[in-house]
Amino acid sequence: MACERDQHFMRLAIRLGARGLGRVWPNPAVGCVLVRGGRVLARGWTQPGGRPHAEAIALAKCDARGATAYVSLEPCAHHGLTPPCAQTLINSGVVRVVTALTDPDPRVSGRGHAMLRAAGVEVLENVEAEAARALNAGFLMRLSQGRPWVTLKLALTLDGRIATQTDESRWITCPEARRMVHVLRARHDAVLVGAGTARADDPDLRVRDLGTTHHPVRIVAAPRLDIPVEGRLGRTVQEVPVWLLHGATADQDARKRWSGAGAELLECAATPEGLVPDAMLQTLGQRGITRLFCEGGGHLAASLLRAGLVDDLIVFSAGKMIGSEGRAGLAQLGVTRLADAPHFKLTDLRQVGADIVHTWTRQTV
Amino acid sequence: MACERDQHFMRLAIRLGARGLGRVWPNPAVGCVLVRGGRVLARGWTQPGGRPHAEAIALAKCDARGATAYVSLEPCAHHGLTPPCAQTLINSGVVRVVTALTDPDPRVSGRGHAMLRAAGVEVLENVEAEAARALNAGFLMRLSQGRPWVTLKLALTLDGRIATQTDESRWITCPEARRMVHVLRARHDAVLVGAGTARADDPDLRVRDLGTTHHPVRIVAAPRLDIPVEGRLGRTVQEVPVWLLHGATADQDARKRWSGAGAELLECAATPEGLVPDAMLQTLGQRGITRLFCEGGGHLAASLLRAGLVDDLIVFSAGKMIGSEGRAGLAQLGVTRLADAPHFKLTDLRQVGADIVHTWTRQTV
Repeated sequence: MACERDQHFMRLAIRLGARGLGRVWPNPAVGCVLVRGGRVLARGWTQPGGRPHAEAIALAKCDARGATAYVSLEPCAHHGLTPPCAQTLINSGVVRVVTALTDPDPRVSGRGHAMLRAAGVEVLENVEAEAARALNAGFLMRLSQGRPWVTLKLALTLDGRIATQTDESRWITCPEARRMVHVLRARHDAVLVGAGTARADDPDLRVRDLGTTHHPVRIVAAPRLDIPVEGRLGRTVQEVPVWLLHGATADQDARKRWSGAGAELLECAATPEGLVPDAMLQTLGQRGITRLFCEGGGHLAASLLRAGLVDDLIVFSAGKMIGSEGRAGLAQLGVTRLADAPHFKLTDLRQVGADIVHTWTRQTV
Repeated sequence: MACERDQHFMRLAIRLGARGLGRVWPNPAVGCVLVRGGRVLARGWTQPGGRPHAEAIALAKCDARGATAYVSLEPCAHHGLTPPCAQTLINSGVVRVVTALTDPDPRVSGRGHAMLRAAGVEVLENVEAEAARALNAGFLMRLSQGRPWVTLKLALTLDGRIATQTDESRWITCPEARRMVHVLRARHDAVLVGAGTARADDPDLRVRDLGTTHHPVRIVAAPRLDIPVEGRLGRTVQEVPVWLLHGATADQDARKRWSGAGAELLECAATPEGLVPDAMLQTLGQRGITRLFCEGGGHLAASLLRAGLVDDLIVFSAGKMIGSEGRAGLAQLGVTRLADAPHFKLTDLRQVGADIVHTWTRQTV
């Protein structure tokens, strides 16, 4: 049975694990807390790139004999570059291991727990499982569906517009909201925009002003590869990776220019309407991306929504009105019956500066 | 000096006053609390129609000698059908009167306070003035600008739509949000919709399911009076008033039909684009309306916004997306520069059922 103390320390482990979000892909972001006599001996979380694991980090910091280890995911049981964490825990002398989630990775999947129990370590599973599932939504989605967890950001006026008729869009939202967007970027493996947005806004897509040197992979969905290599993305491709998703008919010269500049070209299925959303995401999943942050524009957002591939929706609403001449934040969805409109469930609501931000998750009807 | 106790009782008086909202027009909604030795002796609020006044109601309930009276607006000083409240307070033997606001009505405007002081009653002014100003925003707006305070309601999908391309709009928002709309109706003197909405939705516009028999005046802005008298409004015109704002060129037969049914016809200035928003509101102000609740549609809302005549904006956002083929909640605003877009400041934010409701007030730049 999990007592309140177990839940408390597991929540701490989960929060520690969250520090790795956006940096540990394709591995899960795991946190570990070692506790003896109600006191925290050491803490650890999965390091950038996915190694070392959280348990190894924490165990290296103390003598853990007699302690309880709280780990937000089942310890690994397979030999890789390092011994399995289950073995490391056994060797350390911990007497009890509390976990939040069984690792669905077929190389682990219960074997970590079994190894521990076989060595006489007491194991308690499924403590704060829901929070751990939320933390690992991307890792779990990629393992089960082969694609990343997709978060779509929309920054809109109260009437759903993203720019005036003359394409003025800077700035719809307040500085605090824009800063929050940078925080969100930093917590994702990759940022995705459509070719239209890449051309119109010439975005940089790096994380600014947060004192971090970590940046997500910058991805553009550009079926015909018709984005100028002279833009901000092309100029900074050596500093932070740029991946370009394109179709089979993409211009050969453009391929050469972008390859030459150092971008990675990823060909995937396309129709005359654009890249096939599911094919795009499967391609990114194969490359290890577990958490994808889509920043628009309206056509890419609509294609993901139409395909039912938006998992979380983060809407920034600014207290402004542009009217129906303005540019809509979302293109056509092909919805005729209200019952067929994509439905979302509210998960968070707050004020940020002068704006509001509301977060919704896909309604699985 | 106002102490914490004064503020506490004044807030109570203001909350009591709010019970009259939507029912006391063209008078202000006032609350009164009589307190002696820290105990509430009696409470009162302005009754429907504006009489009796809050002070008279409270004073009739107790022996107020030696008490303090908390009144959310300066007591009246002019003889009407009844003696002025300032005199009634003096006669009652109260020793202290605390008020939140000076009545800007030229017949009062400081004279109530002066009468009390002249009779030896201690007077403390401007306690919780801001809250009292908010309570009386409609009354104050009509006195200063000749028009009602305008609250615009929008019920939108996350992408700013109010219906699918096939005009399906029932229901975008959840039952709890729709119930809140009825609460809002009940707190306003009148509800306003455009002719397009009246034709398309055939709305009833009464207050439902709140156990109240009070309903706001139902007003349609119909420049050409081209709405069928056979609809819900026409059928119920004997039960709750219907006013029709129309232009000089409105069809004579339609005028006769609606007059015959019992509706009130109010002619006001019009252009080929529709009724002149300021003329509409001045007409309603002349008829005593202090608080107007506009429920759309998109063209009426846009015309009020363009004219800078929307004071409060209440947005219900449902977790659905319809896409750009859907009907926009707001028509053209003629905004080309972002700086010219109507700006609003957040005043309230909450979840209601499955939706969110955010309230904004006009940004006076």
